[in-house]
Amino acid sequence: MMRGQDHYRVISKERLSRLHEQELACFKARTGRSAMLLERGRNSMVKGVPMSWMHGLYRHPSLFVESGAGSTFRDVDGNRYIDFNVVDLAMTMGFSNPHINAAVCRAMDVGAHFLLPVAEAIDVTEELAGRTGVPYWQFTLSASGANTEVVRIARAMTGRNKVMVFDGHYHGHLDDTLVESAGGKVQPEGLGLPKGVELNAEIVPFNDLDAAEAVLRKGEIAVVITEPALSNCTLVKPDPGFLPGLYELAHRHDSLLCLDEAHNFSFAFGGLTRAWNLPCDFLVLGKGLGSGVSFALYGMSAPVAAFVDAHTAIDLGEPGIAAGGTTYASTVAVFAAKAALEDVLTPAAYQRLGELGLRLASGLQRIFDELELPWRALHLGPRSGYCMQPDEPRNGAQAHQSIDIDLIAARKLFMANRGIWDAMPTAGPQVSFVHTGDEVDLYLAQARDFLKAIRTG
Amino acid sequence: MMRGQDHYRVISKERLSRLHEQELACFKARTGRSAMLLERGRNSMVKGVPMSWMHGLYRHPSLFVESGAGSTFRDVDGNRYIDFNVVDLAMTMGFSNPHINAAVCRAMDVGAHFLLPVAEAIDVTEELAGRTGVPYWQFTLSASGANTEVVRIARAMTGRNKVMVFDGHYHGHLDDTLVESAGGKVQPEGLGLPKGVELNAEIVPFNDLDAAEAVLRKGEIAVVITEPALSNCTLVKPDPGFLPGLYELAHRHDSLLCLDEAHNFSFAFGGLTRAWNLPCDFLVLGKGLGSGVSFALYGMSAPVAAFVDAHTAIDLGEPGIAAGGTTYASTVAVFAAKAALEDVLTPAAYQRLGELGLRLASGLQRIFDELELPWRALHLGPRSGYCMQPDEPRNGAQAHQSIDIDLIAARKLFMANRGIWDAMPTAGPQVSFVHTGDEVDLYLAQARDFLKAIRTG
Repeated sequence: MMRGQDHYRVISKERLSRLHEQELACFKARTGRSAMLLERGRNSMVKGVPMSWMHGLYRHPSLFVESGAGSTFRDVDGNRYIDFNVVDLAMTMGFSNPHINAAVCRAMDVGAHFLLPVAEAIDVTEELAGRTGVPYWQFTLSASGANTEVVRIARAMTGRNKVMVFDGHYHGHLDDTLVESAGGKVQPEGLGLPKGVELNAEIVPFNDLDAAEAVLRKGEIAVVITEPALSNCTLVKPDPGFLPGLYELAHRHDSLLCLDEAHNFSFAFGGLTRAWNLPCDFLVLGKGLGSGVSFALYGMSAPVAAFVDAHTAIDLGEPGIAAGGTTYASTVAVFAAKAALEDVLTPAAYQRLGELGLRLASGLQRIFDELELPWRALHLGPRSGYCMQPDEPRNGAQAHQSIDIDLIAARKLFMANRGIWDAMPTAGPQVSFVHTGDEVDLYLAQARDFLKAIRTG
Repeated sequence: MMRGQDHYRVISKERLSRLHEQELACFKARTGRSAMLLERGRNSMVKGVPMSWMHGLYRHPSLFVESGAGSTFRDVDGNRYIDFNVVDLAMTMGFSNPHINAAVCRAMDVGAHFLLPVAEAIDVTEELAGRTGVPYWQFTLSASGANTEVVRIARAMTGRNKVMVFDGHYHGHLDDTLVESAGGKVQPEGLGLPKGVELNAEIVPFNDLDAAEAVLRKGEIAVVITEPALSNCTLVKPDPGFLPGLYELAHRHDSLLCLDEAHNFSFAFGGLTRAWNLPCDFLVLGKGLGSGVSFALYGMSAPVAAFVDAHTAIDLGEPGIAAGGTTYASTVAVFAAKAALEDVLTPAAYQRLGELGLRLASGLQRIFDELELPWRALHLGPRSGYCMQPDEPRNGAQAHQSIDIDLIAARKLFMANRGIWDAMPTAGPQVSFVHTGDEVDLYLAQARDFLKAIRTG
């Protein structure tokens, strides 16, 4: 992971470090009840929290939450926070959205799960087919699960083993894509992955068709997986023609292309696949259908669907594609998806979201300019971001130059103490369908105060 | 997979085949509206259903469900079915359980997810620690996800790669355990798994400590994963001393032991781990907390928890164990688990469940005896099963002799046409917390009619 330090010509390391300490003390002073719960939690949970990864997102003790409504949640000490990461896009429709709540409660009344379909599943998949142009759909429990099934289908269909991803990627918790590039070599990204996992993947730079072709040409790639715009290393947009070119190259070399819109689906009506009219073989959706209820879907082209149809395990007969699970496609998942698509994720809602996103990004750029920071406010739909360079990143390596965890951690603490939450260090602020213009302005005012406080001179 | 054919000395193949055809015609005649939905579904979903694996469970066209309540669901044609597989144990508390419904609706009001803990997570993990004796807990989205994290922790902790499982096992959808034994060799169980996946696992016969030690002695096993009683190949119970002996052997050879109670947790209060006072390093729970809302947990011993604590990824620092996910440990999961444990899964409820299970199993045995079938009704807690041999199976290979899919498919159809549902061919009938004695008797009456209809002579 490359990290540029150019920004320390305009940011004072000393002020940053002092500010972090002050803000941490302030944070601790106003979160005493959370601290007590955390202490109690340590007796029955690793790190005192129900998933230790939660702990690792922050450089301060974990909050415990009391409740949330709309864009805002309240901790057990009564502090309020407007969430500008919307739970890593799992809650883009806001906390306690009435449409989603009604749908989930109705699903519980109907029966949470049957291991048999309900008619509303057809409504959901027909709507997705119409909205995205990708014709056939299946449910899973998470985007990780959807990507897992995509890889398995692609392996079975192509007879090849490898997955190609881009530097800066994240596609969930499957072994195959939990890899990173280090000095041109693929290596496991975390501890505990199976021996030889690095042999299952190739990693190339985003926006580089030549590098992609050099790998594809070897004929080992079953499927290329990418977000249309990389959203897990700040924000990296594709050059015009890159994604159609990638599809064309993949097909020329008998590989398949999967667009992972687990995040991007919140960026535009019908996702970037529709907004940019992108060709693909698979389309993965997940948290971008963000109701907080866990489910995901993946779409397939007609040829892929025909292959899956012909290779579905029947009873205890011939082995089929290792797909499906007893908890997938529950009534809860289906009803939540239907309500999200029909009642919340409307063209008008995306229109309003886009306007708020522009207000956020252009406001951030104005602050950079005013404070004479030679930086660039990233922008795509509802998402913005801090690029601490004059030019937008074109790939993961460039994007990582703006991921300075010391600076990000201090910003998060500073903002948290002033009622703004932004969990994911590698994302960027994003507005949800329930944010208001005033809330965006509040974010901007605090971003300005923070940057002013750490600026040199 | 071995399949004995001994039972065709007492069952008529011809009658079975004729019965299957009659029952299929009858099934189709009364499910016209489901058939129309299935036809419409084919335009946007593989096999016409939201998860093609659903299709593969049956030899008849899929039903579409209208709703369920208690032990019973109704299809869109108005037919009613008492579910004796309780959605593969995902709905052991019944369809639309008022305690779970209230908890889930409350969770939606509070906010479905925050990527931060709520205090109720501590209540859940403290209760589980007290109930099972396993001290530290973490949430995931499914038992597959829990087993995935167990394997990763074990690999990181032992520095070894391989997982040991038992013939007849099922531990979910992770690559590493989707393997089976064929002629003594490990092979992938489905299509699309990564190249070399068979090198990550060893498979030995259940109840065979010598075979287990022969593998463990090689020093390659990170973790042994097993259900205390195998529940995915009918029902295989451990010999007295087998599981404590396995723990002792694993530890002698520096491996870890994971008990997967995704199913078994519904068999006894606190799971079989508590009921049989079993030692373990990991304990996996999932559908046995069966509310129909997707979540799972795994427990750890103190030494394992200390290792995880010391190897949790913090911010963007040193790589930690590849664990956690943005949708884990949601408010919905936590509230559903708390309601399940406090309001439904009480000692009194398990007591009642055990009595019903005994009624089911002893009733089935009486039928076998009356019809002079030299068979054995399997029994453990709420679970029964058809063993088409005089003696209970002691391992997966013996169990598979009773898995005759032609016979099972005909039984399922016969019963479905008479209002009894039993989805999973490899399980066995199981009573839920909401079944009644009368419903058990209804099941038994139909089992008797079915067996009488296909008996020779």
